[in-house]
Parts: sequence; structure tokens; C-alpha cells
Amino acid sequence: MRVRNKPWAKGYMADHLDRLVVEPEPLKGNWQSRFPSNQPLFVEIGTGKGQFIIEMARQHPDRNFIGIEIQTSVIAVALKGVVNSGLTNIQLVHTDGEAINTFFEAGEVSGLYLNFSDPWPKKRHTKRRLTSPVFLAHYADVLQPEGQLQFKTDNRGLFEYSLGSLNNFGMVFEGVWLDLHAATDGVEDIQTEYEQKFSKKGPIYQVIAHFPTNN
Amino acid sequence: MRVRNKPWAKGYMADHLDRLVVEPEPLKGNWQSRFPSNQPLFVEIGTGKGQFIIEMARQHPDRNFIGIEIQTSVIAVALKGVVNSGLTNIQLVHTDGEAINTFFEAGEVSGLYLNFSDPWPKKRHTKRRLTSPVFLAHYADVLQPEGQLQFKTDNRGLFEYSLGSLNNFGMVFEGVWLDLHAATDGVEDIQTEYEQKFSKKGPIYQVIAHFPTNN
Repeated sequence: MRVRNKPWAKGYMADHLDRLVVEPEPLKGNWQSRFPSNQPLFVEIGTGKGQFIIEMARQHPDRNFIGIEIQTSVIAVALKGVVNSGLTNIQLVHTDGEAINTFFEAGEVSGLYLNFSDPWPKKRHTKRRLTSPVFLAHYADVLQPEGQLQFKTDNRGLFEYSLGSLNNFGMVFEGVWLDLHAATDGVEDIQTEYEQKFSKKGPIYQVIAHFPTNN
Repeated sequence: MRVRNKPWAKGYMADHLDRLVVEPEPLKGNWQSRFPSNQPLFVEIGTGKGQFIIEMARQHPDRNFIGIEIQTSVIAVALKGVVNSGLTNIQLVHTDGEAINTFFEAGEVSGLYLNFSDPWPKKRHTKRRLTSPVFLAHYADVLQPEGQLQFKTDNRGLFEYSLGSLNNFGMVFEGVWLDLHAATDGVEDIQTEYEQKFSKKGPIYQVIAHFPTNN
């Protein structure tokens, strides 16, 4: 997501370190200490301006949520949203989502969300896609048994790639949606900013899957 | 496919039993005897009026093809097409595709095609879908190791179901296309009559997969 530089971002972030983690590694295995209640932990990688994760936190007070975002000018907006929401079951992490196995313990995460991740359409950038095997291995490390990976995108090429990648990794599909906004099965769909803006141009794809338990 | 009754069908079929098999079970393990050359065998279940399988036979003279179709008035049209084509590497079978393991030997089939199969949208009819687990087990019985199942449809619900079903059966995806006619990867796409008629209404979906070899 490209955004203009926000001069207020750094100061605002420094003022709200109760909601924002900038050094996640020391919290490995101890993320519940950042929340008032010990509850199942759900993580979004690439949380953008936070609309999805904040609304999830609002609708699921019995879960704890973490939104990870690397871009300063973007996470600053998400942080404002978190602070203004008054919700205590959500924390943001200002870092790269690449090596989440370095800051979550095995089984510490109950569910993972990837929403409208960068498609990296060029073949030589395949490894950068958040559904490529190296990333999947990291997710497998931190997710509890049968913990869901939920992936949503409007990018056809990325979704075609991802269905193959998840399948080839041995992941078990729980559901596939090829036009999420037309779904009639009652599947939950909390929309992201991006989704609200762009979904009229074409279908939203989604897959929910878990890693095999015999791994 | 609904078609008008064709009074000429039965007589025409009786006159062309060199191209048409009506009792497939005795040929189990011996299908090559129906062709002039012993070549890899590819089978389409639900061949309709035959446009796909006849064009495949034309483009791949180094393979043998079998089209299976239960509806008399439909297969009669396909048979006319086969006879008029002059191709000798194609045979039709007038039967139900349900129990193909009763008339193909293990490993006798190199590849299987399902094109625009009946979607059976009602939940209670799930078992009738040609990509449901009972059918997949039959395909696994007859396909050679790594033999491809190629499935193409314009029905979103059926494709969503099928991706899950194939995945849950342990099949390995080789490729997924969510808009086959927009594909730029050079994938072969021999169109069916149905596809030419209806594809403008929406995308054509396709998956190519094989069964795991450790089964």
C-alpha cells in the first residue's frame, strides 16, 4: 500500500507503546502478557490501516488480536484506530511479517489472516509471496494444531498460485470461495479498506485451510 | 444436457459398433484392441456431443481417446462426429461413467477429462458430483501413477466444492486457472460446445491434479 509520509506518525507511535510493539522477539511465548485476558490469539500479517483487525476485535471480544505491519505511515493510522476504538483485545506490531516464527512460540497462534497481500506477479519474486512455501513453513511453526490460515485476495494470479502452493504443502482446505461477496453460506466477511474500495472491479477470492496434523 | 429425442439415433449406433462400445466390461484391460495403435489412453467422462474429444484426437494422433456418454440422443451426435472425422484413435462408450473401475484396469488410463459436469447444486446430491470422493476413488483405481485428472467448469459452486474435494482426497494440484480464457501461460484449451456457447457469461475454471503416488 502506497501512502504519503505522515510527519505525526513517529511521535504518535512513541506515545502509544501500550498498544504498539516495536520489538517483538522478547515477547515470544509471552504475548498474552500484552492483554488483560488470556484468550486465543489471532494474527493478521500486513494489517494495513487496521480496519479488518479492529472490526474483528470488536466482534470477537473473546479473542486477542495482533496486527503486524511494516510501513510506518500505515501502521500509524491503524494505531489511531486502535486507540480510538477503546478495545483492549488488540495489539499492533511494527515489523516485517516474514519471520513470525522468531517472535511466536510453536502453537501460540490460534489463527492467521492474510488479506490482499502483495501479489508479487513476477516469477522471480515468487518467494516473496506470503503464501510461498518458506512463509507457509513459518506459519506451520506457530499455528496450533488445526489452527486456520485464512487468505483473501482480489488478485487472480496470486490466488491461483496460492491454491497450488497451499495444496502442494499438504494443507487441508476447509473452504474455498471464488466470489466471497456473492457467498450465501453465511461465511464471515469483515472487509478491509482495500476490499471496500476495489471489490467492485471483480470477485474476492478466499481460502481457509489448516496444516496436516501428522506433520 | 437436455436434447430432443433423435429417432435415427438407435439405428445409426447399431450400424457403427466399430466406433461405439455398448458393453464395456469385457474390454477391461484390453482397450488397446479397439485401436490400430497401442498408445496412451485418455478418457472423457460425459463427452456430450463430442466436440472436445474429437478435437483432442485430431490434435494428438499419438494418443488414444475414449468418450463416455450415457444419453443416447447426445452420444449419437458425437458418434456422427467421430465417423465423419475419419479419426481412428477415438472410441465412444455408451454407458454411465459412474463405475469406470469396472471397465478399466488399474493403470490402464493415462489421463481423465471432466468437462462441464452436472453441478448437482443441492447439498443432498453432493455424492452425484463427478468430483465427489466416491468418484475420485474410482479415478484413482484406473489412472496410472501421476496420471492427470483435468476438470473444467463454468459453475462456481461446483468448482469451489471440487477444489476442496480434490484437496481433501490428497490430490496434488499441478495448476489452477480461475479464468481459463484469460490465461497467458499457454495452457491447452480445447473448447467444448457448451464452453463456446456459455463462457461469455462468466469465467471458465480449471484444475489439473494427480493422485499421490504413495497411495
